[in-house]
Amino acid sequence: MAEQKVNLMAEVTLVTSFQDADPMGVIYHGNYFRFFEESRRLLMEKINYNYRDMVISGYAWPVIDSYVKYVQAIPFNHEIRITAKLAEWENYLRVDYVIYDAQSGKRMTKGYTRQVAVDMKTEEMCFASPKILAEKLEPYFV
Amino acid sequence: MAEQKVNLMAEVTLVTSFQDADPMGVIYHGNYFRFFEESRRLLMEKINYNYRDMVISGYAWPVIDSYVKYVQAIPFNHEIRITAKLAEWENYLRVDYVIYDAQSGKRMTKGYTRQVAVDMKTEEMCFASPKILAEKLEPYFV
Amino acid sequence: MAEQKVNLMAEVTLVTSFQDADPMGVIYHGNYFRFFEESRRLLMEKINYNYRDMVISGYAWPVIDSYVKYVQAIPFNHEIRITAKLAEWENYLRVDYVIYDAQSGKRMTKGYTRQVAVDMKTEEMCFASPKILAEKLEPYFV
Amino acid sequence: MAEQKVNLMAEVTLVTSFQDADPMGVIYHGNYFRFFEESRRLLMEKINYNYRDMVISGYAWPVIDSYVKYVQAIPFNHEIRITAKLAEWENYLRVDYVIYDAQSGKRMTKGYTRQVAVDMKTEEMCFASPKILAEKLEPYFV
Repeated sequence: MAEQKVNLMAEVTLVTSFQDADPMGVIYHGNYFRFFEESRRLLMEKINYNYRDMVISGYAWPVIDSYVKYVQAIPFNHEIRITAKLAEWENYLRVDYVIYDAQSGKRMTKGYTRQVAVDMKTEEMCFASPKILAEKLEPYFV
Repeated sequence: MAEQKVNLMAEVTLVTSFQDADPMGVIYHGNYFRFFEESRRLLMEKINYNYRDMVISGYAWPVIDSYVKYVQAIPFNHEIRITAKLAEWENYLRVDYVIYDAQSGKRMTKGYTRQVAVDMKTEEMCFASPKILAEKLEPYFV
Repeated sequence: MAEQKVNLMAEVTLVTSFQDADPMGVIYHGNYFRFFEESRRLLMEKINYNYRDMVISGYAWPVIDSYVKYVQAIPFNHEIRITAKLAEWENYLRVDYVIYDAQSGKRMTKGYTRQVAVDMKTEEMCFASPKILAEKLEPYFV
Repeated sequence: MAEQKVNLMAEVTLVTSFQDADPMGVIYHGNYFRFFEESRRLLMEKINYNYRDMVISGYAWPVIDSYVKYVQAIPFNHEIRITAKLAEWENYLRVDYVIYDAQSGKRMTKGYTRQVAVDMKTEEMCFASPKILAEKLEPYFV
């Protein structure tokens, strides 16, 4: 059975920081997760399921893998737009990210993170996402 | 009454990371806390009072203030030696740090952090450090 | 002769990140420089003297010391307002920061950083701030 | 023609920091690049081709993509062993990483980064790695 499609997306525009840049004058590759984090935070706020809501629901959602494709170096003091889009959710929560140059609209980065639900009582990984996630996502079903 | 003197010190030598440097090629000023943290970790291990021991003892020890004097810029890929010394403990835990160029021995940075005990049950700040700290420190009294 | 007074201030409101919080659930003390950095960036943009302008002007402005007073722990996912105010400028650039709880207006942190001009050709520290700074600040003289 | 095999590997053992852990008490997923960085630094030192050598050679080596598989959460204050192994080099520099629990030897993480040479004069990406890399690697050919 195909996965229930969901249309859930968030975006944020920000100016990159001097402190996140490395001696080459561009954002250090490990610091892109900061941008992903901020856009995913906004994505999860949309469905009222932030980190605190997760704990209340009895589930932790550790990241199980991540991928980043650095298409173009991002300078510091540079305005970027980050989008986060829910790509999969029935077995794990996959969020796809794209970073754009805010001025030119050119794509600078893409990547994803996948998270899986862990039952905080049993400390066991869930093979399917818990019902609470489906409930939160329902308004975004298409 | 004067504070009971304690002779407790730790040190660590490490090579600074590319990722902690900024576009000027030197360690970003906010990243020095990383060096302080590592030396304080070793200091606290000496008295068997690390973060987990603190929680078990019923006290959190938030940092209440910090000061850093950046005497000389620290390049990345540079070997430094960090010392942490317990400077005060009866009312709060003050640790003094010095960072040296590991090769020349020249002093590059000094600073301190002060922490205060907070009773985790009442969430109240302790005006004097709890007995557990004195017990941990006793072997280092001078 | 007293220092020429300047009325220059910037502020920014943001939501703290999960990733900047430590296992106690509050912003790690070393990460406050991230908030200071963002507000100082906005302050310097006001006088058109950001990091790139500094390099073009022939001066680097390394931080020579910093102080932070952690009045109240800042949780993650918490809305804060940061103000940066130019406090001294003739011999060094001192910026004073205050972090407020954005909702209650309560003060959570205060701190400062001091930077000094270094002539990038001679690599020598300037005892007085270079003329370029006075020119940039002139519209804000009071 | 198959790629010339190279046997080049580095490893480092360290204790994870409180400051790199998130409110779940485990290392934040974006901070694993810190471990990769440290092991890659040692790998590159083996062939005398660190960041400064790269710049001298006329090439920058930006990371073009990265992948991390988080097999098991890593607590703070936990001793880990990180290995970095050169996996490909003729067209780009791929380093494979594994993080082990230093005590049990259990694998906790794996990942890779890929870097590509960029000619610093022309700012053009090199389709094949420059000769300097082959020269540096020659002692490790198998």
